[in-house]
Parts: sequence; C-alpha cells; structure tokens
Amino acid sequence: MPTPPLAGGLGGPAALRPLIDTVLTALHDGATLRDGPLPAGGPDTVTPRTRTATHPLIPDHGTGPHHALRNLVTALAAGAADPAHPHCAAHLHTPPLALAAAADLAASALNPSMDSWDQAPAASALEADLTTALAAEIYPHAPSPDAVITTGGTEANQLALLLARERHGPVQTICGANAHHSITRAAWLLGLPEPVAVPAPTGTLDLAALDEALTELHRPLLVVATAGTTDTGEIDPLDAIADLCATHGAELHIDAAYGGPLLFSPTHRTLLHGLDRAHSVTLDLHKLGWQPASAGLLAVPERHHLTPLHHHAPYLNADDDTEAGLPDLLGRSLRTTRRPDALKIAVTLQALGRTGLADLIDRTLATAHHLADLVTKNPALDLYDHPTISTVLLRPTGADDHTVATVRRTLLQRGHAVLGRAHAEGRLWLKATLLNPHTTPQDLQALLDLITDTTADLLTGTTTDLPADHLTRPPATPTATHPTPHPTESDTPR
Amino acid sequence: MPTPPLAGGLGGPAALRPLIDTVLTALHDGATLRDGPLPAGGPDTVTPRTRTATHPLIPDHGTGPHHALRNLVTALAAGAADPAHPHCAAHLHTPPLALAAAADLAASALNPSMDSWDQAPAASALEADLTTALAAEIYPHAPSPDAVITTGGTEANQLALLLARERHGPVQTICGANAHHSITRAAWLLGLPEPVAVPAPTGTLDLAALDEALTELHRPLLVVATAGTTDTGEIDPLDAIADLCATHGAELHIDAAYGGPLLFSPTHRTLLHGLDRAHSVTLDLHKLGWQPASAGLLAVPERHHLTPLHHHAPYLNADDDTEAGLPDLLGRSLRTTRRPDALKIAVTLQALGRTGLADLIDRTLATAHHLADLVTKNPALDLYDHPTISTVLLRPTGADDHTVATVRRTLLQRGHAVLGRAHAEGRLWLKATLLNPHTTPQDLQALLDLITDTTADLLTGTTTDLPADHLTRPPATPTATHPTPHPTESDTPR
Repeated sequence: MPTPPLAGGLGGPAALRPLIDTVLTALHDGATLRDGPLPAGGPDTVTPRTRTATHPLIPDHGTGPHHALRNLVTALAAGAADPAHPHCAAHLHTPPLALAAAADLAASALNPSMDSWDQAPAASALEADLTTALAAEIYPHAPSPDAVITTGGTEANQLALLLARERHGPVQTICGANAHHSITRAAWLLGLPEPVAVPAPTGTLDLAALDEALTELHRPLLVVATAGTTDTGEIDPLDAIADLCATHGAELHIDAAYGGPLLFSPTHRTLLHGLDRAHSVTLDLHKLGWQPASAGLLAVPERHHLTPLHHHAPYLNADDDTEAGLPDLLGRSLRTTRRPDALKIAVTLQALGRTGLADLIDRTLATAHHLADLVTKNPALDLYDHPTISTVLLRPTGADDHTVATVRRTLLQRGHAVLGRAHAEGRLWLKATLLNPHTTPQDLQALLDLITDTTADLLTGTTTDLPADHLTRPPATPTATHPTPHPTESDTPR
Repeated sequence: MPTPPLAGGLGGPAALRPLIDTVLTALHDGATLRDGPLPAGGPDTVTPRTRTATHPLIPDHGTGPHHALRNLVTALAAGAADPAHPHCAAHLHTPPLALAAAADLAASALNPSMDSWDQAPAASALEADLTTALAAEIYPHAPSPDAVITTGGTEANQLALLLARERHGPVQTICGANAHHSITRAAWLLGLPEPVAVPAPTGTLDLAALDEALTELHRPLLVVATAGTTDTGEIDPLDAIADLCATHGAELHIDAAYGGPLLFSPTHRTLLHGLDRAHSVTLDLHKLGWQPASAGLLAVPERHHLTPLHHHAPYLNADDDTEAGLPDLLGRSLRTTRRPDALKIAVTLQALGRTGLADLIDRTLATAHHLADLVTKNPALDLYDHPTISTVLLRPTGADDHTVATVRRTLLQRGHAVLGRAHAEGRLWLKATLLNPHTTPQDLQALLDLITDTTADLLTGTTTDLPADHLTRPPATPTATHPTPHPTESDTPR
C-alpha cells in the first residue's frame, strides 16, 4: 500500500475529495438503513450488529481507506440516534448545522493546535477575537471581558470552581438541587468540599433557602445558579441571586450552558437578566448554538480573572519567545493539544449573523411552546408546565412512574423516538428537549401520538414485539455503588 | 434567509456536499496564498491580517454559509503552521491522514454524544470495542484491559493521577525532570502534593536518584515514567523503573503519549519493554497515530481500575434504565458531552491495518535517523544524539543559546520553517520533531540549509528584512509570574 495521503498541504483537498464522497454516501446509506430517529432493538440488537459490521477493528492488513470509511461510517449512521430527526429529542443533543460540520472539516484537515502560536498562527488570532466577542455578549458593560473555549459545560463549570479555589482557597460551593451534576463532580475533582444543595422545589433555586445557607455557611462561598436546567429548562432568578450573593459577600457562577445563547434573541434575552453580574458564566454552543461537539465556553468579566490558568512550559512559551512577541497561549486551557473549535463557531456566527441566530432560537422556542399547547389539548397527556426555553415535560395521564419509564424505553427499543426523563413534583416525566429548528407541528403531533399509542399498548399488554424482560423486569435493587437518588421515584409495577 | 440545513438525517449529505466543496477550495486557496510551512511576518503581520479578513465575527446580518466558509477557512489556511509541510516540525503536532480527517467529518455530521446510549447507540459499541482492543495492545497479558478516550495526554495524565488519588488518598507523585508539564499541572488541579522531580541528566530518568527518592519518601507513591519525552523523544528505562516501583511498593504510570504507538511496529516495539507493568498508560494517537486532534487514551490493565470515574446523573443513567440493559457510559470520561473520537481512530486502524501503521511509524523513524545522519555530516551543525523515536536536536556549531533562539524565531518570522527548542546538556537546541511520513531526504537537506543559512545571516548581520527588535531585543527580565525556569539558559547577546 502506498503511504496514505495527508489532509493538509496543497495536495490535501484533492486527497480529501474522493474520501469525503465516500463518507457522504455512507452517511446517506446509513440513514436510509436506520429509517428513523434511532435503530430498533435496543443495545441487544445494535451492539452485536455494530460489532459484526466493524470487525476486525485492528486487522493485520488494512482494507484501504474507502472500504474502512464506507464500512464504519455506514455502521455508525445506521446505528445513530440522529438529533436531526424530529423524534430524537431526549437531551441537549443538538442537530448540527451543515455549515458548522463543514467548517469543522477544515479544523481536522489543518489540525492547528491551540497551545502555541507556532502551531496555530491564524487560528490563535481567530480564537482570541471570537472569545473576546462572545465574552462581550455576556458582559457588555465589563472592562475587559474574556472567555476560554472548553469541551463543554462540564469543563467550563470545573474551571469556574477552579478559578474560585485559586482566588479564595478551599471554597464552599452552594448550588441548587436543580444544578447540573458536573458541579458536584468538579468539587470532587478539585478536592473541594462537597457542594451544599439548596432546594429547588418548583424547579428553580429557592431564594429563602439560599439566603439561609449563605447566612449559615462560612466564607469563602461560591454560589452556582443555572440558566437552563437539565431537567426542566428553567432559569434560576439570576438577578435576585446576584443580590443575595452581594449581600453575603459570596461569588456567583452561572451555568448558562443551555440558556446562554438566548442572549442573541431580542425576544428572549430578557430571560437572562442578571447574567452579567456573575463572576463567571458557562455557555455551550453545542446546545442552542447548533455546533457539533464540542463548543463550550467559560466567560469572565475581567481578563485577569483567568490568570490562575497561566502555566509555563519552556518548549511552548519560553520567556524569550514571549518577550520577542510570540503570544503565550498555554494559559487559555487546562488542555495542551487543543482543536480550534473557534472556527466552526465563527463560521456559524458570520454566516447567520445575530438575526439568523435569533431566528433559529426563536423558531426552536416556538416549537417547544407549540408542543406544550398540543399536550394541554390532549386529554391523555399531562403537561408539567409551559417551557421557559425548549424543554417540555409531559406524562400519560394517570400513569405511574414505572409506566412512564417503560414508555420511554419502549419507544427507544422500537426505534420510534428518543425521549428523556426527568423528576419534577415528585414524579417521573417524559422529557422532550427541542433543539431542532426544522421540526414541524406535524412532527410534534406524531410524537405525541407515539407516546399515547405506546402507553395504550403497554396498559393493554399488546407489546408482544418486545422482549418480556424489558417490560416486566422487577424493580431494581439499589446497590451500595448506585443508591437510588430519588426516593420519590416509584419503581413498583402496576 | 431560509432556515439553514442540518448536517444529519437523510438530507444532510446533500446539504453538506456544496459546503464541503467550498471548504476544500478554500483550503487549497489558503495553502497557495501561504506558500510554505507558515505565513511570513510573525504575529505582528498574521494577527492583523487574520483579523481584517475575518471581521466582523458577529455581524448583525449574516453573509451566508458559502461566503463565511470561504472567508474564514481561507484565512485559517493562509495563516496556518501546516504540519503537512516538511519544514513544519517543531512539536508533536501531527499532519493528519486524509482518511482520518474524512472520518472525523462523519462524527461532526452525526454528532453522537458519548455520555449516554440514547445519544450514541452504535458509537458507544464502537468505542467500547476500540478501547478494549487498544488496551489489549498495551496490556496483552492482562485479565481485562480497558481504556478511556481523552482529549490528549494532558487529560490522560490527569486521570492517571486522579485514579491513584482515589485508590490511595493524597498520593505523592515522583516524576523525572524530563516529564511532561501536565504532570505538575495535574497534581495542582487535583489538590495533590507537588510532584517530586528526579533528575534526568542524560535525558532519561536517573535510576539511582529514583531509588533514593523512593526510599526517602513516604507512601503512597506514584512514579510517572515517560516513553517519548517532549524535549528529546527519549524513553525512560521502563522495566528497571517498574522493578524499583515493585521493590518499594509504589505504583507506576507511564506517559507514552508520544512513544506508545511504537507498539504497532515489530521493528521498534522492543523500545517499550516494560510498558505493560504500569498501572496506567497514556497514549496519544494525534501524535504518532496521524489523527486530527484529539485522540488521547488512558489504558489500565484491569477494567475495575476505572471504577472511580463512575458517576450518577439520573437523566443519563437512571438505575432502572441501567437495570433494563441500557449501557451506563457516563463513567467513561470526566466530560459529559463527548465527541466520538473513536470513529476516526477505528477508520485509520481498519484502513491501514497493523502493517500499514507499522510502515508509517518505521518510515517516520527512518526519516529522523536520516536527518541525524545529515547533521553529523555537516560541520556547521552539532547533533545532540541519534534519535530514539523521531526527535532530533541540533544546533549551529559554536553558537550561543541566544543565537539558537534567534535562529528559531527568524525562521518562524520569515515563514521558512517551524522548529522547536529544547534544553539538554545545559544548552539550548533546535528541535525537529519529525512526524511526516512523506518527508523526503531532499526536504531534510533543505531544512538544514535553511538553518545554516539563517545562522550565517545572523552572525554576519544580513538580516535587514526583519524588524530590528526581533533580533536585538535585550534579555527578558524575569517577572514574578514567569520565573526563568532554566538558569542554564543564557540570554546574553553576543
């Protein structure tokens, strides 16, 4: 076999062209084979089928690029839960825009690494401008807003806790019971005290309980509020929380991984009032920004807040190189090698502009409101609440939690729909996180029909196409390693 | 503007095709404009040019996808340090294979997220098989080898220290003075004691000094050895270090980010003897594996060693879902949303096979040996040593450190070559990290000619094409935040 061609250089584009043609054909073939939001049959079917199609992963003699691309990409597409399908709506799992995926190809081909200027001359300039511009969207009145690009909200939240730790020592984090799991995980990682969870009985952080916690706990304190919760897409009362933090001398981090991009919508940005009072803000453009993973951000109002990330490695940022004018980029991340995620984000923002992005956001939120309206009109379904952003919780009227969980798994198992789950008001709900701006009212009605039909099937026992154990398995016995997190969740079969 | 199309679904490939055509044309145009390994002029030229070409990043009204892609991708390519150019050889900054970059497009288009099965049915099966297969390459005799995919060696090293901390509490890390900077950074991040640095006067960790440190320090201890150092590409005496660790009851982590893929070469794998005695191993396939960033791995000999990463988030891995057979993937990373980097790696391994990958590795190492031979034959250049992997240190004969640093910056400034720098034997060297399997002997000779010609220019003062301050700037004054790390480095101008 001749030495396989590289993606870069003058010859790269010509080498890529036929390979990409194979990839696009395989993506289409895989989607045709799948024929729905995800393959039917669950892991018991998909895992062995994928394994067979891709075996052997490390052959002695290669099968050549076209065969391997056709083989593996077809298998991946045939076995995908494709967020571009309107019935794939479980998670904050966005369907990427074609233009963003196309831009990301250039990042792969050129392979700039963001840890030193001499690996990314133009990419580092682009990233610096983009992070400054995005930080200024979040902190329009701050003296020197800045941001660093992360692998997502989880890393951004981790950095927020790390920066607080470096400013104040072993800071005590206080977050709502509605906060993302990454807050607790970050505290564990960083050797910080376990976060104190303030109740959020109505879905948002309870202000009286927060006031009490701030009064009782010793400083230094870091409050984490959420703008767009994972379970219900609600937004904590940011401005009132900022007031309490100011009163008690606590710092505030806002996890706006989900809700942050509402800033681009003149219609919806008022939902984020108070966001710019935070010491740091998490934002993910691989959620309401339609980027392929990953496109996370941590923003701060003043550039010098990022100083604790500065780091010295003579091969990357020797003093005399820095002194001679080579930018020192190592302190822009905890990673070293780092992909230029700024490119796809910048292409998207320039291609769409503020108005185009606002249109996508407004369209998506309107879709969610329409789904909620359809639920309220359907006597077989209960609605949790009208959505704040684009998360709609619903459940079959009168169903117990076990049935709700089984409806979700049955839809998955049949390959009919990918819905999430969330606890609220002591009950389990089906969760539809709408992120697809192309979803139509007909798609939404079809999704509700799938839910009600599946519920009826389950309750009348006409689910003979499913393995019995997926429906009648007895409640899980909690183990030491996996304690039941929500004692309110009833697993008792009807 | 109509709602822009998505990358996924049945219509995605057709939407992607014209956009990708624009990207490939822009990559070619940018490479033509650049006409070399990197643009000339340094940051003072590249940064404003990039800024002008890409301004405004967030316009009110979008310019449309083709304009934005053409504009930004051309700017990025024109301003790239392209590792596919044979004279771009500073860092472990690989030129990706076209087939790997093409595979990565499918990851962007489908956007599976690896944190739950219902976002990545086939991708999670593929990742599980791939990580098991790669771990078995590293630990061929272990009972249940496993690995997790990381953003690179930095995250893998961080996980290694984290796993040791979770097993033993506040573990004391001992590493060589030749270890990667990420070891120290990981200890800081995790709240662990600062690593003890054992001397590595000849480039590899000194065994007597390690023995002494292991004797003096209190357990629990974690020794970090390096297989492929950043500065010289040398490999610590792994087997002897494993013996010392066994004697003293210390654990061993091996950072084989660079050298690990030598396992695939029957010719060179003996260099890694002892690798499988480590409690964990870091490996980066975005170095000697020709993947676009990122493609890191942390491997362990027994699956249960990864248990401390297990994590519970009811929306992703509810007990009853796990009990019903949905795989629990959240514990495969500290990240939540996570790109399927397994795809490009699997495509590469299947396309090339062991023999094809071994051929790339052998070819690259032969290139490095050829460069070293050329240096030894050149009276104007000194060679540090024959390369162990593919890193060649050289310096103009008789030059002082300031001249060496200036030669490097001059080559960068002129857009002629991207070379790294490293300290060894108390002196500063130019570093060529060869990772391009297409580099020819003629390319290498031309690179050496560039070095000797530039040195002659500098020493005879014929460098009028450069801004004066890039050559005559006085030595940097060490600051509190950036102390000079190597007191042996002389910055005194001649």
